[in-house]
Amino acid sequence: MKHERLREQVCEANKRLAESGLVVLTWGNVSGIDRAGGAVAIKPSGVEYDKLSARSIVVVDLDGCVIDGNRRPSVDLPTHLELYKAFPDVCSVAHTHSKYATMFAQAGMPIHCFGTTHADYFYGSIPVTRVIAPEETDEYEANIGRVIVEHFRAHKLDYKSMAACLAGGHGPFVWACGAPQKAVENAFVLEQVAEIAFGTLSLSAAQAPLAAHMQELHYLRKHGPKARYGQDCT
Amino acid sequence: MKHERLREQVCEANKRLAESGLVVLTWGNVSGIDRAGGAVAIKPSGVEYDKLSARSIVVVDLDGCVIDGNRRPSVDLPTHLELYKAFPDVCSVAHTHSKYATMFAQAGMPIHCFGTTHADYFYGSIPVTRVIAPEETDEYEANIGRVIVEHFRAHKLDYKSMAACLAGGHGPFVWACGAPQKAVENAFVLEQVAEIAFGTLSLSAAQAPLAAHMQELHYLRKHGPKARYGQDCT
Amino acid sequence: MKHERLREQVCEANKRLAESGLVVLTWGNVSGIDRAGGAVAIKPSGVEYDKLSARSIVVVDLDGCVIDGNRRPSVDLPTHLELYKAFPDVCSVAHTHSKYATMFAQAGMPIHCFGTTHADYFYGSIPVTRVIAPEETDEYEANIGRVIVEHFRAHKLDYKSMAACLAGGHGPFVWACGAPQKAVENAFVLEQVAEIAFGTLSLSAAQAPLAAHMQELHYLRKHGPKARYGQDCT
Amino acid sequence: MKHERLREQVCEANKRLAESGLVVLTWGNVSGIDRAGGAVAIKPSGVEYDKLSARSIVVVDLDGCVIDGNRRPSVDLPTHLELYKAFPDVCSVAHTHSKYATMFAQAGMPIHCFGTTHADYFYGSIPVTRVIAPEETDEYEANIGRVIVEHFRAHKLDYKSMAACLAGGHGPFVWACGAPQKAVENAFVLEQVAEIAFGTLSLSAAQAPLAAHMQELHYLRKHGPKARYGQDCT
Repeated sequence: MKHERLREQVCEANKRLAESGLVVLTWGNVSGIDRAGGAVAIKPSGVEYDKLSARSIVVVDLDGCVIDGNRRPSVDLPTHLELYKAFPDVCSVAHTHSKYATMFAQAGMPIHCFGTTHADYFYGSIPVTRVIAPEETDEYEANIGRVIVEHFRAHKLDYKSMAACLAGGHGPFVWACGAPQKAVENAFVLEQVAEIAFGTLSLSAAQAPLAAHMQELHYLRKHGPKARYGQDCT
Repeated sequence: MKHERLREQVCEANKRLAESGLVVLTWGNVSGIDRAGGAVAIKPSGVEYDKLSARSIVVVDLDGCVIDGNRRPSVDLPTHLELYKAFPDVCSVAHTHSKYATMFAQAGMPIHCFGTTHADYFYGSIPVTRVIAPEETDEYEANIGRVIVEHFRAHKLDYKSMAACLAGGHGPFVWACGAPQKAVENAFVLEQVAEIAFGTLSLSAAQAPLAAHMQELHYLRKHGPKARYGQDCT
Repeated sequence: MKHERLREQVCEANKRLAESGLVVLTWGNVSGIDRAGGAVAIKPSGVEYDKLSARSIVVVDLDGCVIDGNRRPSVDLPTHLELYKAFPDVCSVAHTHSKYATMFAQAGMPIHCFGTTHADYFYGSIPVTRVIAPEETDEYEANIGRVIVEHFRAHKLDYKSMAACLAGGHGPFVWACGAPQKAVENAFVLEQVAEIAFGTLSLSAAQAPLAAHMQELHYLRKHGPKARYGQDCT
Repeated sequence: MKHERLREQVCEANKRLAESGLVVLTWGNVSGIDRAGGAVAIKPSGVEYDKLSARSIVVVDLDGCVIDGNRRPSVDLPTHLELYKAFPDVCSVAHTHSKYATMFAQAGMPIHCFGTTHADYFYGSIPVTRVIAPEETDEYEANIGRVIVEHFRAHKLDYKSMAACLAGGHGPFVWACGAPQKAVENAFVLEQVAEIAFGTLSLSAAQAPLAAHMQELHYLRKHGPKARYGQDCT
């Protein structure tokens, strides 16, 4: 079996997606990329998570042509590919319809940073894109990816410190500059942050975001050269 | 045992209803129909889900007369029968008091389509009927079914692309043009969609529905001749 | 061991209270009465549910004097006793701090009947009492019971068709004219009904109650001589 | 292994934090102090709860210097130390990002006492501090502790009857004058109380706190010389 390690990671990450409560039925998918080999591995479309095996994972090239596997890839594959093409250090992508993040996506509202839980993982507001226009429906899934990239460029957002975006009227796409498990973890944190933000707005509808110095302090405490969280930083 | 396969499917689907968290105590029921044989199989009234066996399922004709089984059928049977009589391709019906769908039913509010999660399964707003009038209480359960059918006809709704209806002040009835498990899946998706719509309205009380081209695109991506989701479409 | 059957039922019902998610830590208690023998059995104070045995249940007379058992009874015992003394057909009482019922108690709001889920079990609005006055704190727990009874008499409520009351600023007391398991079931239904009412009010703050003919129809469908739900009615 | 008993208690309490649903990933920590020995034991930074052992717990002195253990302590250690230094009878501290308490912290709102569930454990409103100022970010974690202490002194709060504080824009710190398990229990109760208060405010936005005589009665029923709850009081 070619791309065995990548397939195993992608298979494992898709199962983790279901176990962590982020998806029901078959409403989500994770992919990973081998940039050197030009191969993207992704969940097959409509297959239940507990029936996935490394063998059932589909491997495609960056144009979406299947290079290995006998299943049809997730319909969301073209979105993943656009993100890999535009964001050169991204190594994995996860898509879910997790409840609280999807509520914000459906309301067309970004998730502002109201506290340190958010700031520990995402630097600034988690953005929400416009909805796909009627003339963009031909290459619908690819255009979701393009609209995310367009949003990041127009608002000068850094995909490394903001590893998530809400597709307007749809749901979250989340990525990582690490293994597929890391994209799943980011999707999990996004849902936690979305739920706490939802409750914060219920208590205080006009709540201002956390002060900028606090957002910076918390993000940098966990990321970058001065990180001092965990056992691995120096 | 006659109607063995149908009984087994209905028994299994009722158990699934409980396992999926859609019902507590004995607050829901699933039926299935053998249209060729003119037989409807349904849960017995007031029996706990973990005590159901294929043998305990009650089989009736389309007039509600028991043709097989020694239990009393669910009190909601006449509602199921009205739906089978009016909607000729429906093969299974599920009724629950699932929480979020019931909140909308109690508020007398339809569940508008605010996002693609909804559009993937239900085409348009999930309707809510008027409450049963005092003069309709004599054949109460049959009249719930008739009011649902009346609502679909008055609003020119298609029961195939809108497989659910909220009985006003009561709760959801959901159906499928497939096996009883499919009606349970639709009831499950309805509850997911209702919860996310509930949260969307909390964030944005005057939220407009998803643009029509998006509702159409998502519904047709999963249903009909151009479906391209899953492994089975051609 | 005296009162063995009653102790076993009360022990079992207290454990069920915890298993059904109505209580955490030691925040609830169930009692049962042997009216012929003048004995009330109740949970011991502050003991965890998984450590309860029939032997640890405390048996008292209607004045609250311990007649069997070497533990201190629940501090809420005097409330239970007032309910047994005022409501002659009540055979069991349950007290919890279940979340949604407690939210209504803390808000000082009754739970109006917004739908058939409520009407199937409780006939009318679930009442909430006034808060205990400063001069009533001497016999605090007994006065909670007296205030509930006072509320039922002042508003001409029937404790048989309304088997629950919210103690204002505190939480629910629920009873049954049957075994302790039945009081626990009523407490469970109360919490379900409270949660759905909570959501209904979120969607529709000025929601009117369900029409009176529907409340009557649903309550009588499950209770009294014309009941036609379940397998036991004739 | 030195400080074996303290390490075991702290290890056990950190695991309990995860089991009780108060934390996800590695978002919380518990410490305990041996006041006679001048030793504080705390969770290592970024280590998952199911991988903790007594050996992995870090032991420091009151200046934060590691005196035993080869892991890096939680980044929140300086906050714990400030609380131990200012509150002389505190023996354990827990920090979480539990959802409802964090919503109040992010909204900058105290949790008022709306009912007896709260009054049984916390005497008065659970306070929320100001956010750390830009000039306080140098010793950030220590300053969180100092701001909590400053708040208690400015508002003449008693850390014994109010064993929790919300760090503004961040989340709860909770303590106990007993073993680490007790700090975890207080953190658990805080979350329950926060959730019920959240719902109370949803139902009744301008809800007044529970009358003072009720707050006093309930707190003293469970604490102090006249306590009459449980099996141990005299």
